[in-house]
Amino acid sequence: MQVKNIFDDIKIDKSAEQFISLIDTKNIKIEKIVSNGQKSKEDFWYDQEENEFVILLSGDAIIEFENSEVQLKKGDYLNIDSHRKHRVKYTNENEPTVWLAIFY
Amino acid sequence: MQVKNIFDDIKIDKSAEQFISLIDTKNIKIEKIVSNGQKSKEDFWYDQEENEFVILLSGDAIIEFENSEVQLKKGDYLNIDSHRKHRVKYTNENEPTVWLAIFY
Repeated sequence: MQVKNIFDDIKIDKSAEQFISLIDTKNIKIEKIVSNGQKSKEDFWYDQEENEFVILLSGDAIIEFENSEVQLKKGDYLNIDSHRKHRVKYTNENEPTVWLAIFY
Repeated sequence: MQVKNIFDDIKIDKSAEQFISLIDTKNIKIEKIVSNGQKSKEDFWYDQEENEFVILLSGDAIIEFENSEVQLKKGDYLNIDSHRKHRVKYTNENEPTVWLAIFY
């Protein structure tokens, strides 16, 4: 039985976020995402077919919606309904922000 | 947009584990589980219809399989296939063990 640790192999990469697929089936995808200060481009909005449950496991972030935003710290989670437009407005530049995202 | 923290409202309950449903749809269930030293009964094995992706977010635990066992610490995750028999052999008695389990 293979056990891995979500905090292993965290790259400090200022040039790009890392998206690591942990589970990928017809009904569900689980991704580890590592941000190092990256944010969505100014005019970019995620507009996803799937619902997304996301939990922040280290670092800090701000997710922006069309009429609101939420600050996230370690342990914070939220559920983003499909087609609820959102973008990453901020991630911590000084320590990696580790996300676990479940798309369903 | 409602944000909650997985480490809020952690009960120290030596009498029973807490199972808190976070997402419950046809295809997927996401549960927060809090253990305080509880373990599966001696002759009990989980034998689930669903696959289970589980990550330990605080505390310590041992999951036992029929021919092996794994020790889990903060950040460790594993995928347990459906009908792979398993039981919780140990959870830390001195601090809460917080699990995020995704059944799919």
